[in-house]
Amino acid sequence: MQIREYQESDWPQVWPILEQVIRAGDTFCYDPLQSEVQAHALWVAPPPAHVVVALDGEEVLGTSNMYANRPGPGAHIASGNFMVKQAARGSGVGRALGDYLLDWARRAGFAGVQFNAVAASNVGAVRMYESLGFRIVGTVPRAFAHPAMGRVGLHVMFHDLHRPDAEEPAA
Amino acid sequence: MQIREYQESDWPQVWPILEQVIRAGDTFCYDPLQSEVQAHALWVAPPPAHVVVALDGEEVLGTSNMYANRPGPGAHIASGNFMVKQAARGSGVGRALGDYLLDWARRAGFAGVQFNAVAASNVGAVRMYESLGFRIVGTVPRAFAHPAMGRVGLHVMFHDLHRPDAEEPAA
Repeated sequence: MQIREYQESDWPQVWPILEQVIRAGDTFCYDPLQSEVQAHALWVAPPPAHVVVALDGEEVLGTSNMYANRPGPGAHIASGNFMVKQAARGSGVGRALGDYLLDWARRAGFAGVQFNAVAASNVGAVRMYESLGFRIVGTVPRAFAHPAMGRVGLHVMFHDLHRPDAEEPAA
Repeated sequence: MQIREYQESDWPQVWPILEQVIRAGDTFCYDPLQSEVQAHALWVAPPPAHVVVALDGEEVLGTSNMYANRPGPGAHIASGNFMVKQAARGSGVGRALGDYLLDWARRAGFAGVQFNAVAASNVGAVRMYESLGFRIVGTVPRAFAHPAMGRVGLHVMFHDLHRPDAEEPAA
C-alpha cells in the first residue's frame, strides 16, 4: 500500500468512499444529504491543508485530510479525518493513514493532533486512535445522533507530539 | 440593558469590539491579523445562526452569535461566542448574553450547548460559564498559545439542556 498526495484524477474513486460514509451518517458530523460538490469542498481542503489517498496499485482504498485544527493561537495543533473504502476496512488502511498523519504533523512542526468529534459508537476507530497514542480528553454526552443507536457521546481525542514528560528533566 | 437581533447598522459599533478582542489574541482561536471583512464573515453568521447585540440605550456593550455546533448527526447541540466591550467588562454583559444564548438554544430545541475551545487562562469566562451551568468536559493541554502566558489548555465546555437526570424516574 502506498500513500500519496491527492490528485483531482482520484476524485472518481474518492467520492464513492465519501458518499457511502456521508450517507450512512453513523460516524461523521457531516450533513448526510450534501451534494458531491459540497463533499469535495469539505474534504479536499486547499493548502496548507494536505489531502492524501491510500492506494493498492491503482485502487484507492482510503483517504485522509490534515490541517491546523484552529487559526491564530490554536494553529500549533493539527487535526484531520480518515475514510476507508467499505470493502477494505479492517485491513490496516486506517492505521496506515493515521501513522501518516502523525508523521506529517511532526514534520510540519505541530505540537499535537486533536480529533474534535469521534463518535463513541465508532469503537474500532477509537481503539485504533488509542493504539496510535491518542487519548480521550473528554466526551460530550449524547452529542452524536447515531441513526440506529440513538444519541451517543462524542469524544475529543488528543495526541501530544512534544511529549514534554520525556523531554523535561526528571524531578 | 436590552438584547436584540444584530442589524447591519450595528457594525460600526460591533467591529471595534471584535477588533480589540481579535487583535489581542488572548481569548479566541481567531487569526489575529484578519481583516474587518473577514471578521464580519466570521461573526455575522447567516441564518439559521442567530446574532445579537447587548445595548445600553444606543450603545453596543457586547455581542454574541449562536448556531448548531456541527452539521448532520451533531446538529442537536448548539454553540456560540461572546464578546464584550472592554470598558463594559465585569458588569454582567457576558452573563446576560450567556443567559440569552441558553434561552435561545432551549427555544430552538437544542439538547445542549457546547463551547469547543475556551482558553483556560480566561478564568473569568470559565467561571461565568460554570455559574450558568456549563461544566468542563475535558481540557486539551497546551492547545492555546497565549501571547503572554505561553501555551495553556483549551477547555471543552458543555451544558446539558435536557437534564435527563431530573426527567428520568428515580431508580
